[in-house]
Amino acid sequence: MTSSQNLTHSLHNFLFQNHQETLSRAYSLIHDALRPKNLVLLEGKEQRREENLRQFREIVSLGLDGWYTDEHLDGNPTADTSSKHNLTTTQQRTREDLIAALWRRVHTVNAMWDAGMVGQVTSTLHQLFSTTIESLGTKESHARFFPSSPDMKNLSIFGCFALTEMTHGSDTKNMKTEVRYLPETQSFELHTPHRDASKVWIGNLGKHATHAIVAAQLIIQSKSYGLHWFVVPIRNEVTHDMLPGVYVGDWGSKTSATWDAMDNGFVWFDHVKLPLASMLNRYQEVTPQGEYVVKIKDRRTLFGLTLGALSGGRVGIAHDVVSRSRLSLIIAVRYSHARKQFGEPTRNSPETEQPVISYQYQQYRLMPRLATYFCMNFFGRNLHNWYQELKQMTASGDITHQFLDMNSEIHALSCGFKPVASWHARDTMQICRECAGGHGFAAWARLTALRDDLDPSLTYEGDNNVIIAQVAKYLLQAIKRVHQGRKVSSPFHSIDYLNDLAKFFGQKCNIESSFKSTEEISNALKWKSMYLLVKSSKKLANLMGSSEKTKSTWSAFNQTQAFHLHSAARAHMDNVVFQCAMEHIQNCTDTQVRNVLTQCAHLFGLWSLVAKDESSSVLLEGGYMNAHQMQLARDEILEWCRELSEVSLSLVNAVAPPDFILNSAIAPSDLDYPKAIWNRVLQEKGVYEKAKYWEILRTPVQKRGGLASKL
Amino acid sequence: MTSSQNLTHSLHNFLFQNHQETLSRAYSLIHDALRPKNLVLLEGKEQRREENLRQFREIVSLGLDGWYTDEHLDGNPTADTSSKHNLTTTQQRTREDLIAALWRRVHTVNAMWDAGMVGQVTSTLHQLFSTTIESLGTKESHARFFPSSPDMKNLSIFGCFALTEMTHGSDTKNMKTEVRYLPETQSFELHTPHRDASKVWIGNLGKHATHAIVAAQLIIQSKSYGLHWFVVPIRNEVTHDMLPGVYVGDWGSKTSATWDAMDNGFVWFDHVKLPLASMLNRYQEVTPQGEYVVKIKDRRTLFGLTLGALSGGRVGIAHDVVSRSRLSLIIAVRYSHARKQFGEPTRNSPETEQPVISYQYQQYRLMPRLATYFCMNFFGRNLHNWYQELKQMTASGDITHQFLDMNSEIHALSCGFKPVASWHARDTMQICRECAGGHGFAAWARLTALRDDLDPSLTYEGDNNVIIAQVAKYLLQAIKRVHQGRKVSSPFHSIDYLNDLAKFFGQKCNIESSFKSTEEISNALKWKSMYLLVKSSKKLANLMGSSEKTKSTWSAFNQTQAFHLHSAARAHMDNVVFQCAMEHIQNCTDTQVRNVLTQCAHLFGLWSLVAKDESSSVLLEGGYMNAHQMQLARDEILEWCRELSEVSLSLVNAVAPPDFILNSAIAPSDLDYPKAIWNRVLQEKGVYEKAKYWEILRTPVQKRGGLASKL
Ligand SMILES: Cc1cc2nc3c(=O)[nH]c(=O)nc-3n(C[C@H](O)[C@H](O)[C@H](O)COP(=O)(O)OP(=O)(O)OC[C@H]3O[C@@H](n4cnc5c(N)ncnc54)[C@H](O)[C@@H]3O)c2cc1C
Ligand SMILES: Cc1cc2nc3c(=O)[nH]c(=O)nc-3n(C[C@H](O)[C@H](O)[C@H](O)COP(=O)(O)OP(=O)(O)OC[C@H]3O[C@@H](n4cnc5c(N)ncnc54)[C@H](O)[C@@H]3O)c2cc1C
Repeated sequence: MTSSQNLTHSLHNFLFQNHQETLSRAYSLIHDALRPKNLVLLEGKEQRREENLRQFREIVSLGLDGWYTDEHLDGNPTADTSSKHNLTTTQQRTREDLIAALWRRVHTVNAMWDAGMVGQVTSTLHQLFSTTIESLGTKESHARFFPSSPDMKNLSIFGCFALTEMTHGSDTKNMKTEVRYLPETQSFELHTPHRDASKVWIGNLGKHATHAIVAAQLIIQSKSYGLHWFVVPIRNEVTHDMLPGVYVGDWGSKTSATWDAMDNGFVWFDHVKLPLASMLNRYQEVTPQGEYVVKIKDRRTLFGLTLGALSGGRVGIAHDVVSRSRLSLIIAVRYSHARKQFGEPTRNSPETEQPVISYQYQQYRLMPRLATYFCMNFFGRNLHNWYQELKQMTASGDITHQFLDMNSEIHALSCGFKPVASWHARDTMQICRECAGGHGFAAWARLTALRDDLDPSLTYEGDNNVIIAQVAKYLLQAIKRVHQGRKVSSPFHSIDYLNDLAKFFGQKCNIESSFKSTEEISNALKWKSMYLLVKSSKKLANLMGSSEKTKSTWSAFNQTQAFHLHSAARAHMDNVVFQCAMEHIQNCTDTQVRNVLTQCAHLFGLWSLVAKDESSSVLLEGGYMNAHQMQLARDEILEWCRELSEVSLSLVNAVAPPDFILNSAIAPSDLDYPKAIWNRVLQEKGVYEKAKYWEILRTPVQKRGGLASKL
Repeated sequence: MTSSQNLTHSLHNFLFQNHQETLSRAYSLIHDALRPKNLVLLEGKEQRREENLRQFREIVSLGLDGWYTDEHLDGNPTADTSSKHNLTTTQQRTREDLIAALWRRVHTVNAMWDAGMVGQVTSTLHQLFSTTIESLGTKESHARFFPSSPDMKNLSIFGCFALTEMTHGSDTKNMKTEVRYLPETQSFELHTPHRDASKVWIGNLGKHATHAIVAAQLIIQSKSYGLHWFVVPIRNEVTHDMLPGVYVGDWGSKTSATWDAMDNGFVWFDHVKLPLASMLNRYQEVTPQGEYVVKIKDRRTLFGLTLGALSGGRVGIAHDVVSRSRLSLIIAVRYSHARKQFGEPTRNSPETEQPVISYQYQQYRLMPRLATYFCMNFFGRNLHNWYQELKQMTASGDITHQFLDMNSEIHALSCGFKPVASWHARDTMQICRECAGGHGFAAWARLTALRDDLDPSLTYEGDNNVIIAQVAKYLLQAIKRVHQGRKVSSPFHSIDYLNDLAKFFGQKCNIESSFKSTEEISNALKWKSMYLLVKSSKKLANLMGSSEKTKSTWSAFNQTQAFHLHSAARAHMDNVVFQCAMEHIQNCTDTQVRNVLTQCAHLFGLWSLVAKDESSSVLLEGGYMNAHQMQLARDEILEWCRELSEVSLSLVNAVAPPDFILNSAIAPSDLDYPKAIWNRVLQEKGVYEKAKYWEILRTPVQKRGGLASKL
């Protein structure tokens, strides 16, 4: 084995521990059973959606749609997966078991994402429908919708999740869809008061779903009790016709082939009758007498439980987009090693072409992002595992203080990580596309599709710029405590560093000649985060002091978004990701792997501090660094980029899926991209054929006389 | 007229001067004659390409495909447009006439881009083929391919431009296609020595073109004379069959619908015979005796003429992408005024929803880019006009020193402006998409298509990161002169400020309380550009001094790309764009318009200095600003964003095309986006229909037994 193959191998082992086998089985499953088609090449929405449904059915039939039921993945095919609450089984396992099982699941699902399988998105939404009902519903009748129910498994039920309305998305409190309690019939009536209050964008709804969870304002005797959840039949389970009063349709085309294969839909309801049992009743209920009962009295607890339910989607999306950024990086890095252009003239041969990875700017564009991928991947895993712990506690009903703290921290971390992870993926995917020059633009390079498919994750499950404010709020609470002389400590320790606030202020960077110290980078990251946080809290306090009370909070926060709260939240996330990555890396016993990953983490840290965005000036402005150190930091970044670029092929190969999954003609594992491109181009439909319509050209062009007078 | 309508009206007048009528005629032409179809909704490549060809034919038949022949646009339908050299006619006009004519042309073409007409791209390439032959060919036989030739007009000839090869793009010198002189037959033989030297990516070639200009290495008696241009027949003009030895095919699919409608193609040549006259012979020629003759002896002149020919494409692309960024801005700004979400609770109504444009972060994301659009648009116009002057001089054959200087300056400016303009457009389009939340992702919002269609302009006609190095080289030469105590002066004055180098060093920003002074912003921009330039030239000098000569230049430049030459070139372009915009704005006699545009320019300038990217720290690092001023600059940016956001609707309306051209359901001019969305969604094919394939769902899902063993 060459030394570069060696690095690939050891890194792969470290990252995937003893799950390589799962991974390769997952790939062969995709190869043999799922056969994903290239959605870009399927012409038209209808065809793409058919492929979606085909994939989805296969995923379900292979049992790969579960969220908790990992028994078969544990290699225990006889485990009882039909029991109502799989979590109960799960709980009996040790935590290690659980995490191992999740790992396998994550691998399978990631492998599907790798292959760009839209059926996976459909399956995720179908499951979201089901798991929401399982966690919020208790009635007998709800059991039919639980993940393990036979009707879910055989697709008699096909679910979706309907929150967003035409004129309200982020601002959920203002949703207009109504569910009114009708005392005469002891039932509900679901109604869309205005067409602009229709549910829209709902994935799976446009053509496929039979049922939806619908969020609606609950009204009893003209009094509104706020948003509640209801299970609503949409289409006839046998004939697939829409049900009376349910006007459901397709929400239109998208320019991303994957999302075009999804039947996002709209629906408006015209006085649709629902049984009392349709309300998901774990925490609130309406009695047949029309009484509104809240089952959990403590408001903080109730709020916490609600928040917790929302974190899951964000945790999953964040982890997933980081993983997808990897695909672009593999493609761009491989291609940059294979693609040769200008050469450095040498004595012997006047023109020796070099691979484009040897150009400084190519290195500078790719390496910090490759480094970011590794760091974020570590953090994504942690967050995923932490969230699973939380879910276990939720299921056990054990609402302790510890639980509520975990809940708040995971809420903040997921509201921070989903934005920074998806921004990372967005920028990385675009840069990778550009780094591949002209060939990077072809559909067969896959880079534009990766970018286009990623796009909505910046928006759904909480618009990035809306949810990042939640992190800022969490940090402000913590810093307030610290200012009051109290200690902060969070279950996963993400904010514990704020206790050192006093110590950090006035501190300066000590570096004179090199940043190659984890501690220095770590300190600088903490300093930057604290500096921006304190600056923000001061600005907020000033603004709140200055005007009348009610108005001021809202508008003070609004005026503190740019350069303040947003920047502070981002700097905090940089720090959190860096610390977590270093923890993982320090546990690595393979020296070569540990060194190269350390260099990745250092590059991520230093680049985030002084080169990623406009906040680079903060370290000078606050007096933490001087101009010399700033210069040094930049030199170091370029040097590390160069060094990493030399092993970058090994790095990407360690996390690369097989070629048929990577599915990019410019990045085959043997680097022979011209061969792979020809292979792809020549197989496309009608490559050498004359276009059917070519005779348009031969119809004589009429010279229009009246042009001057028309134009 | 309300005051906001008033602003719209006056701004429109100022920007379009007396060409409004041209503009509205151009729009009605598109409405009546060209009827663009929504390419995203056309299913499949074949259909999209047919639409492309239909549009192209209409464009040609309307006479809208010319580059120089503006007689009919001048309202002079009887002008002789069939003469061989239209420029001769053109030259007889005054410069003002020419610019007026170009204005009209620009309006028509821009209006077509507004409508997203792919036929326009096809027509541009067809013209590029033709104008290149006109400017580089002199033989009788070449006249058949000139823009005014009847065969070009009636589409017997359909042209394309073939430079790029499979394994060589940016590095043109290394192209491998060969043309060998055969003395026996006094003819040429065109050959592709290896399939990876095939011409690829060539627009119009895949299915449509009959002829190509091909760049190939000229070889006479085993000696290579470098790259030359040849006119090569590709397909039979009557039957459209490919010609013997010409293996031409389709280069595959793209994820952008517009580019998928383009038949980018590949071709390889198998010993194809060409007559001697196929070589474009204005500057070089091969005699029947096989002698190589260079007609322009002075190398600098020859090089200059070659460079000049390349500037045209970049000038056009840059202007065009800025113009297209406007479309995204119009959509996002209008939607932000219409879309309401969270409200600021007030005494009277506890929840008053506000348009999202009132959120600071939304303002901060959109306003600097709107300001950039206005400034870049002014610069794009200048560059366009300057380039036309140059073309006139080229045609007149008047190769003076002044000409060569103009040529170099325009080369540098176009190599700088194309990158900064397309990066601006890229980022703006993505941010606009995100600013429109979920609705921004639908095809009917048009934002994703605008972004996807823009993408290749970052790469073609010179990869951004490759050509920006040309600006840096131009600046380095100038600074070297200045360092030698000599004066620099360029015909369009873009580098004249470098003469003040000595004065600027050591200078500091004087601002204490407000940046509202054009001079201060202007000085800071100049300072930043000079600082980065001097820093780069020092680093270069150091590196070159340190190692052996031949090797060092190449590798020294390579090591000075990031944080140095690239940053210096960008800072220079910020300055150039700012100065040019201010010149235009100062000429505006309408106070309201002048004030608002001045604010745009100030915002563009200050934001570029301290907030656009990581180079923000330079001003502190170099001691030009202190921390207080930095803070002040940021506050000012936010305040200006807020102020501009209040008039932003008027601003975008002043540059907005009619709704049917803007073609975005979330941004109708009356701001009633829900109505416009329903209109669009309900008209799409089969909205309420059951999917044909839905019964896939009803086929029982088979539980696969062997899962555990498979996974
Ligand atoms: C492909 C896709 C699939 C989807 N699937 C589903 C689904 O299955 N079920 C479902 O219910 N929904 C779904 N959605 C809808 C999605 O969840 C919403 O679009 C998303 O929550 C964003 O809300 P919005 O569109 O209202 O954005 P808006 O809130 O309207 O955002 C508009 C702009 O305002 C800004 N903004 C808003 N508030 C603030 C603030 N306070 N401060 C600063 N800026 C602010 C935003 O940053 C953004 O720039 C889907 C959307 C897409 C694109
Ligand atoms: C839609 C489309 C249409 C096109 N139409 C035509 C056409 O009609 N006719 C035609 O001839 N061609 C056409 N092209 C090809 C196009 O002109 C080339 O792709 C373009 O010039 C870029 O060259 P490349 O692909 O070789 O990039 P490369 O040079 O291979 O670039 C790869 C990477 O290397 C980097 N790089 C290269 N050199 C350096 C350096 N010295 N320093 C730092 N970084 C460097 C680049 O920045 C990039 O990141 C088209 C391309 C597209 C996508």
